[in-house]
Amino acid sequence: MTTRILNDVNIVAVGDLVEAIQEESEKAQTVWRSSVEWKGGFRSVATVRDFAPVQSDEPFGLGGDDTAANPVEQLLSALGNCLAVGYAANATVLGIELRDVKIDLEGSLDLHTFLGLNAEGNAGFESIRVAVSLDSDAPREQLEALHQAVVGTSPVGHTVSRPVPVAVELA
Amino acid sequence: MTTRILNDVNIVAVGDLVEAIQEESEKAQTVWRSSVEWKGGFRSVATVRDFAPVQSDEPFGLGGDDTAANPVEQLLSALGNCLAVGYAANATVLGIELRDVKIDLEGSLDLHTFLGLNAEGNAGFESIRVAVSLDSDAPREQLEALHQAVVGTSPVGHTVSRPVPVAVELA
Repeated sequence: MTTRILNDVNIVAVGDLVEAIQEESEKAQTVWRSSVEWKGGFRSVATVRDFAPVQSDEPFGLGGDDTAANPVEQLLSALGNCLAVGYAANATVLGIELRDVKIDLEGSLDLHTFLGLNAEGNAGFESIRVAVSLDSDAPREQLEALHQAVVGTSPVGHTVSRPVPVAVELA
Repeated sequence: MTTRILNDVNIVAVGDLVEAIQEESEKAQTVWRSSVEWKGGFRSVATVRDFAPVQSDEPFGLGGDDTAANPVEQLLSALGNCLAVGYAANATVLGIELRDVKIDLEGSLDLHTFLGLNAEGNAGFESIRVAVSLDSDAPREQLEALHQAVVGTSPVGHTVSRPVPVAVELA
């Protein structure tokens, strides 16, 4: 049996994971990691598992050298990539063939707090807007059901839209 | 006058931005963007401004091809990179010389909701833990003051630790 019948998704691997978790609930508990090293100025690199380090920087106007996307842009990318996985996974489960998925994200951010001009303010995104284009022959109501399933189960979506305890400790 | 007196940070550019915002508060209102395109399976690429697209994938066990860090790892990287900028910026303002900054991040996530096994649950990180190592000759109390300033003003830190409205619209 082939493992990829639709959308090039390895749905057998997903099914095996679901089965393993149904047999042993603890297998759903996962821990994810990243290591960041500062490189001078506002440049840094983040390393995940054995993948090549990914660069980070800030635009010139913010004091950086503009060599890479900055951290808030990276967060938007993470959200978009997470939604892409969600559309691919849920479409495959629902039997929907996708030809293309495009996701445009934008977020509004007030720099006052980051720059120390408003001590008690919100340094983060005030709101994030995401526009999704799905290219598929499936009926509109199926695509809307798919969309609802994805938005309701997105790990990065939930991390951003809900308050997550972040404990930052100085060694 | 040199623009980089400490930590290779272009503190003059940061000062110019602060001054511009103090003169015209609206200049603090920024919008950041990313565009994501699905590439089949659980692979996608995110493009920010004119930078090269950055790949995303999922591990084999989750049904991916394991060609890149996954979206929740990317979110941790974004958080670490954001904190690195914060340490560099605030240390420079405080006159602290940093030799090195290392930031290790980990987050716990229960896969039940993402996999559709717990419809009303939290698909996102339950908690995130960050360990920061600062290599500097500055006294401990200065480094702790720096640390507090960074944690209190981190754009990605606040985005993750506070609830942010995320509106995802299907075109």
